[in-house]
Amino acid sequence: MPKIKSRIRAIEWKGDHLRVLDQKKLPHQQSYFDCRACQDVARAISDMSLRGAPLIGCAAAYGLVLSAQSESKKILLKDASLLKKSRPTAVNLAHAVGAMLAAVQDVPEGGLFKTLEEAAIDYYEKDLESNRMMAAFGARLLPRPSKVITYCNAGALATSGIGTALGVIARAHREGKIKEVYACETRPYLQGSRLTLWELQRQNIPATLITDNMAAHLMKTEPIQAVIVGSDRIASNGDVCNKIGTYGLAVLAHRHKIPFYAVAPTSTIDFNCPDGNSIPIEERDANEVLFISGKNIAPKGARARHFAFDVTPANLITALVTEKGVISPLNRKNMRRILQ
Amino acid sequence: MPKIKSRIRAIEWKGDHLRVLDQKKLPHQQSYFDCRACQDVARAISDMSLRGAPLIGCAAAYGLVLSAQSESKKILLKDASLLKKSRPTAVNLAHAVGAMLAAVQDVPEGGLFKTLEEAAIDYYEKDLESNRMMAAFGARLLPRPSKVITYCNAGALATSGIGTALGVIARAHREGKIKEVYACETRPYLQGSRLTLWELQRQNIPATLITDNMAAHLMKTEPIQAVIVGSDRIASNGDVCNKIGTYGLAVLAHRHKIPFYAVAPTSTIDFNCPDGNSIPIEERDANEVLFISGKNIAPKGARARHFAFDVTPANLITALVTEKGVISPLNRKNMRRILQ
Repeated sequence: MPKIKSRIRAIEWKGDHLRVLDQKKLPHQQSYFDCRACQDVARAISDMSLRGAPLIGCAAAYGLVLSAQSESKKILLKDASLLKKSRPTAVNLAHAVGAMLAAVQDVPEGGLFKTLEEAAIDYYEKDLESNRMMAAFGARLLPRPSKVITYCNAGALATSGIGTALGVIARAHREGKIKEVYACETRPYLQGSRLTLWELQRQNIPATLITDNMAAHLMKTEPIQAVIVGSDRIASNGDVCNKIGTYGLAVLAHRHKIPFYAVAPTSTIDFNCPDGNSIPIEERDANEVLFISGKNIAPKGARARHFAFDVTPANLITALVTEKGVISPLNRKNMRRILQ
Repeated sequence: MPKIKSRIRAIEWKGDHLRVLDQKKLPHQQSYFDCRACQDVARAISDMSLRGAPLIGCAAAYGLVLSAQSESKKILLKDASLLKKSRPTAVNLAHAVGAMLAAVQDVPEGGLFKTLEEAAIDYYEKDLESNRMMAAFGARLLPRPSKVITYCNAGALATSGIGTALGVIARAHREGKIKEVYACETRPYLQGSRLTLWELQRQNIPATLITDNMAAHLMKTEPIQAVIVGSDRIASNGDVCNKIGTYGLAVLAHRHKIPFYAVAPTSTIDFNCPDGNSIPIEERDANEVLFISGKNIAPKGARARHFAFDVTPANLITALVTEKGVISPLNRKNMRRILQ
């Protein structure tokens, strides 16, 4: 079994601050910055220095630990609200904040920091363990040998552990099942080319970059065994919200009869959302589309849209892999069953 | 009717040289270079300073005029072969070279230049006229008001006239039918953001840039009346080869029941190709995917694929708009009929 290089730690709790790997500088620079206040964490989430649904959940948990340095419930609640607003789509953020607030519900001021620190470490460790479980469940779904397509980054940089979609791929690779990973570059933020390729390279997993618009041609002209993606929020009927472009990829996989797997911890499921239509789709600054590495790719004055996510209906998803098991077919009934 | 700004001339014949608008420098710089030898034209085509299937046909015709300055049939044939190899997919190149060689078949050396210059100007003028015809036929297909999606650049920069797909859009806009044009940026070369947006802006046509992976979400969440694209080669059964990403867009349009129109002069049809499988798909340098504006977007040592084109099966195309009329449904029989 090939040895994996030193584990990537996208965030690391240091007792009085959170050390964050600056993902905006990857893959060319591996640099870190420290968050000493909850506001720093909120900013890192909203400007995408730190991204990936499970990871922003863990980071938010630590953000509240930083807030609890004040030992003030009033400040804690204010900061909780700030964190929840830092990005609207990933539900893990609200999930983590909710779990943290629940942990201190009966704790008096003076005991907040200690309780929350334990709760945040626990939340982080659970995410780590859930990565391992998902990897094991997901890898079983892949035949040997497999050529797979992945999208955006659902790896170590998006979680506390080995990742969701990339965790499955890494595990399948250790089992000798992976012949090739095609990583879609994932415009506009290029998480695929900048982050996923970097992670796969570190693990010596054979990987090839394609532009997002090449996936259809590849599916038509090469045997592809699976498309594997993460998720930012899953409605209670199984509709999967993920990085913009996922829905199109699912439609293409469906046409080419290629299994389409979403991999996400159950903290990604939002039972308050009856279906995908009720998931808020973040629309970000158009300049993130109009500029690449600081260079304007369009004429001056050009307008652009920047939808950050889209929703894939449950019926286009072959299976949802969670830490509690594989849900297939993906529907309300099967989701309820696995979560009991 | 709003006045259109001075016509874009992507190439211009100057009696002893061909003036070429350097499309690699658009939209930020509008600069020209001169081709004084046929080799200059071949290089401009292969490095994509000059691109667009109908335009490279016209440019190749002028390339042979430059070659004929030698008044040597031997040199002419050698240069014809060089030109045909400059890019493999667009058939207009071979079509133009064939038309030029036919024009001088019975012409003795000494009369080559004069004959070819007339033939090339004629070829160019015919392309110009065919643009007008396609625009008129195509605009009739669009309802009022229309929001349309276009892909790559099939405009003035890709032809001698107002363009194929963009010609239809410009004509429909003059008729008050266009509410919005969504231009897909078209990775990796960004013809959509760099060229199409520039052309639409010049004509005051309302345009918005999207990344290629946003098209599916847009089709699902907004009423879109049509997808309109150009083509680089059409097989005799109606399969349409066009810029990489077109096939995926056609699959998405089909799922969302949005009409999908290809617009191309009949010089794009290759009757020697029985179907899309026999169209050679150019695979270009991976660095054109790995670098944007000279900046590496992936880790060092990363591998990438760069398919430049894909093939859309005829049954996904609602109609093919040619200068001779609209072919719908698109099949072998209807193609033969319109071309008689």
